[in-house]
This record gives sequence, structure tokens and C-alpha cells, in this order.
Amino acid sequence: MHAKRIHHLGVAVENLDEAVDTYQRLFGAEVERRETVQAQGVEAAAVRVGESRVELLAALGAETPVGKFLANRGPGMHHVAYEVSDLHRELQGLAAEGVELIDEEPHRGLFGLEVAFVHPSSVHGVLAELVAGG
Amino acid sequence: MHAKRIHHLGVAVENLDEAVDTYQRLFGAEVERRETVQAQGVEAAAVRVGESRVELLAALGAETPVGKFLANRGPGMHHVAYEVSDLHRELQGLAAEGVELIDEEPHRGLFGLEVAFVHPSSVHGVLAELVAGG
Repeated sequence: MHAKRIHHLGVAVENLDEAVDTYQRLFGAEVERRETVQAQGVEAAAVRVGESRVELLAALGAETPVGKFLANRGPGMHHVAYEVSDLHRELQGLAAEGVELIDEEPHRGLFGLEVAFVHPSSVHGVLAELVAGG
Repeated sequence: MHAKRIHHLGVAVENLDEAVDTYQRLFGAEVERRETVQAQGVEAAAVRVGESRVELLAALGAETPVGKFLANRGPGMHHVAYEVSDLHRELQGLAAEGVELIDEEPHRGLFGLEVAFVHPSSVHGVLAELVAGG
């Protein structure tokens, strides 16, 4: 497959407002979008850092995926998302190569993006997300 | 300060050849540069993933910074590097804001880049690197 670019870096944080403030202050980041998704147990802010993007992710509870990550690892980098042109085709290609997919089919992720996650065990410990892009 | 973009994502790996192969196979990455820096205890490969860049970092020994990271955390995302126009000035600005800098002055990093690291305690658990860029 061919990834076009890093779509965003996903970062787990304890307090979303404080994290947004830090990224604004330290890196000149600008808030692009912000939303709370109860079903995923997450409150998220997408911030632009120059041409790039960071997704700041706060947990809505201890039993959510981000809440468990924070409990196990503490705040820090959570996943990296790569933009691809044809997400469905790329997933088929990865599955054919024996890559362990968390999502075999694209689904609707944060900010309405069409996404799928690849298991860290197939990417040397890095949780990778694929995002359908133009 | 104002970061221009994510310059690269730094990833700690157990085996550099295997990791390079994975990034080529899964993401269509292309090796941009590769070097071993004994003084930093690291063997590194910069790979392009579309327009973006990932630095794969393997330790030359257990007592190196990357070796200790691998022992503590296992393979995975290690740091994120932001490109800035004027590294010296940005460091002064961050210091004035009370940000904890690992490097108060720029130094020569991997691949001849002029870099400085910001302590994760000032970036919500994320080890951030600033890279001087055009």
C-alpha cells in the first residue's frame, strides 16, 4: 500500500483544555475541530501544528479505551494515523499480507473520518490508524 | 512559537532491518537516510511515508537512551519532532515561558540536523524535538 502522509498524531491527555492550551502556547497550534463522542468514550480536539495535525484525546471515563491507556501508560503518544486514497482496498491488501487488523472494515471515527486501525503487533508496537483521504 | 510541521515521528524498534521492511511493505515507505551514531548509541533510518517522515531508531546497547526506552516501554513511538524556522529563538521563547528544556542550546542530531529536545513533563508526556528547518 501507499500512505500519502501522516494524517495526524493521536495523543492521550489527562485534561483536554490544558493540553489544547499547551499546544497553542508552545507550538502555535490552532484548534481545527473539537467534539465529544460518548460512544467512543472520548473528548477530542484536532489541532493544526503548522501543516500537520495532532489529535488530543481525553477519556470520558476510566473504562474507556483512552482511559485504560492512560491508566496503563500515562499521557503520551497513542497512535499515528496515515492518510490513504482507497481505504477499503488498502485494508484488503494488508489482510492478504497477514497484517493483524483491529478493524477489517472502515468505520466512522472521530470528526466523521472514515478510518480503520491496525494492531500494534503488526507495526512494531505502534498503534496505526488508516484514514481515508481525498 | 510557531512550528511549521511535524518533521518526523521517532519510533524505537528492536530490529532496524525488520522495521524498515515493515514500513516499506505496509506503508510504501522509502528509505531516505540511514546512519549509525556510536556517540548517541543509535542506529537510525529515516523513511519517507508519502510526504511525511518516520525515524526508526534501534539501540546499539541496553545502556543507551533508546535501549533504556525499549527496556522500560517496549518498542513504539519515542518522540515527535517539529520543524521550526529559528531554533535558537524558539528555545529562548520556551525557556522564558518556563518550559523544561532537555537541550537549552541546539546541538547536532541524527542526519546532521540541528535539534533540541523539550522534556515530556512540559508536553503532557510527549518527548518533543525541535528541528531547525529552512
